[in-house]
Amino acid sequence: MSNNLYYLGIDIGGTSTKYGIVDDNGTLVYKNNTSTLPHDTFDSLFETVWNDIKKQRFTIHSIGIGAPNGNYYSGKIENAPNLKWKGEIDVCRIGKKISEHEVSLTNDANAAAIGEKQFGKAKMMKDFVVITLGTGLGSGFYVNNTLLYGSNGMAGEAGHITIFPGGRLCSCGRKGCLEEYVSAKGIKKTVLEFKHEFHDSVLNQYQEERLNPLLVFEAAQQQDKLALKVFDYTAEILALGLTTIINITAPEAIFLLGGISSAGNQLFIPLQRYMEQYALSIFKNKTLILPSGLEPDTAGILGAAALAKGQHTL
Amino acid sequence: MSNNLYYLGIDIGGTSTKYGIVDDNGTLVYKNNTSTLPHDTFDSLFETVWNDIKKQRFTIHSIGIGAPNGNYYSGKIENAPNLKWKGEIDVCRIGKKISEHEVSLTNDANAAAIGEKQFGKAKMMKDFVVITLGTGLGSGFYVNNTLLYGSNGMAGEAGHITIFPGGRLCSCGRKGCLEEYVSAKGIKKTVLEFKHEFHDSVLNQYQEERLNPLLVFEAAQQQDKLALKVFDYTAEILALGLTTIINITAPEAIFLLGGISSAGNQLFIPLQRYMEQYALSIFKNKTLILPSGLEPDTAGILGAAALAKGQHTL
Repeated sequence: MSNNLYYLGIDIGGTSTKYGIVDDNGTLVYKNNTSTLPHDTFDSLFETVWNDIKKQRFTIHSIGIGAPNGNYYSGKIENAPNLKWKGEIDVCRIGKKISEHEVSLTNDANAAAIGEKQFGKAKMMKDFVVITLGTGLGSGFYVNNTLLYGSNGMAGEAGHITIFPGGRLCSCGRKGCLEEYVSAKGIKKTVLEFKHEFHDSVLNQYQEERLNPLLVFEAAQQQDKLALKVFDYTAEILALGLTTIINITAPEAIFLLGGISSAGNQLFIPLQRYMEQYALSIFKNKTLILPSGLEPDTAGILGAAALAKGQHTL
Repeated sequence: MSNNLYYLGIDIGGTSTKYGIVDDNGTLVYKNNTSTLPHDTFDSLFETVWNDIKKQRFTIHSIGIGAPNGNYYSGKIENAPNLKWKGEIDVCRIGKKISEHEVSLTNDANAAAIGEKQFGKAKMMKDFVVITLGTGLGSGFYVNNTLLYGSNGMAGEAGHITIFPGGRLCSCGRKGCLEEYVSAKGIKKTVLEFKHEFHDSVLNQYQEERLNPLLVFEAAQQQDKLALKVFDYTAEILALGLTTIINITAPEAIFLLGGISSAGNQLFIPLQRYMEQYALSIFKNKTLILPSGLEPDTAGILGAAALAKGQHTL
């Protein structure tokens, strides 16, 4: 064992919770996951994770948690729509009581931004944004070298920028939100919206439930016209959302993590073209649009560990 | 003469430049203005202002300038579309050479935000936004107690948030921008768009050039149906823009300055209703929407003076 410090990062999602032990350099030295669903309380989930970690041969310095609606200021998960624990869950207090270690909390997209800053491509950047593309769309903002929490700890909800007033109904109850167009659920809706124009598309063979961004990507690589249309449309809507973000915070870079961003140039080439078209002239070519420096399946763990590290070394 | 410190604030607009001497408490002790248009160079304008200031019996400590496209980082006015000085004007260097005083620059809406922080209603706030409503729409953001400049000094262009993709053509060359709906020019466009539905409106008697927010406000107070429709529509679009801002920076308050915000409850009552309708649930009732604590005709001077003061006392 070295003299390295080790941090436990826990990435809580609606169905699965990933966790791991990360050293000072951002190396993931142990990784595991458990299903979130069977745990009726956060206490039960945290005990499961902690019992596993105790068996490993690493001395944990502190613990970070990234979770939907995780509020850094309050240390509570507040009314997360995709978790079954309702109301406000005091996860920092509960985690500390069980583990006897300091526990920090932030939301999952903020954790990804902290990970990008400490272990990814944003080490030298003061102003950047990480957009996480999964079932929904999350975002974490660094402004002037500090994570943007706003007055109530909940800043950075770019997934709910209104793109089309009166547009697609969002799970938040509002209409026309960015995430209803560019997340996995949004892409599925786009396929369904355009499929009647492309009868010979391979995507028509899939039942609605089975459609996902990976299938669309594979079809696009085969030059399937529906898939190419879906990529073009998604890139255009994403560009509209990103230009709004740039108009407000003028970041040096926006990093895309997971979901359709894994399609690489299939997304980034049309996205760059639409960014050129939609950017305000003073912002043209000022903000880099890049894939994240982290891997989608471990970014949440690294980010949560980076949160723990940041709390104790800054 | 007291031992007070005095600051010169200069508020450069496309047609008129207002300036004044402000003491440490934000009291405007001298105020004047000059036409911007006759001056072929910034040097000429600045000399005119400085020659007038030198005649006053106040010892100036430092100078602040608020101007369209004023970049705090570079100290230059950069390609301002509504000024006839083209390219980049190194106003801080020129002003210092002429006056032998330190000169600071920011854009006009940022100046208003600094004024709100130092002399207005935001003294105790760390996260807030000022929206300036004039011919266009400007915005200045405080984030974590610091003015938001972003990576290039140009952050805070909320006037160019896209509200309707493919909507009204904006002077920036893009379509559907917020300012094309809620600024003075936007309100005129809204009147023209809806007037055919309201043949008996008093607003129909005015030629297009004469229409302005004040006439619409006066008509609304007489319960003119077209004017009421215009206020309702404007409030709805503004609410869509403000919810996007709140989703990103989660401010404690958004202050509205000038333009249609001078209409008071005629705007704020429908605006509050639409904010309720369009706000993301986690942000409902979290952000105050208030009239600015400064007066539209002096806010720019006070803000520029506050910039000068901030540079030398913080």
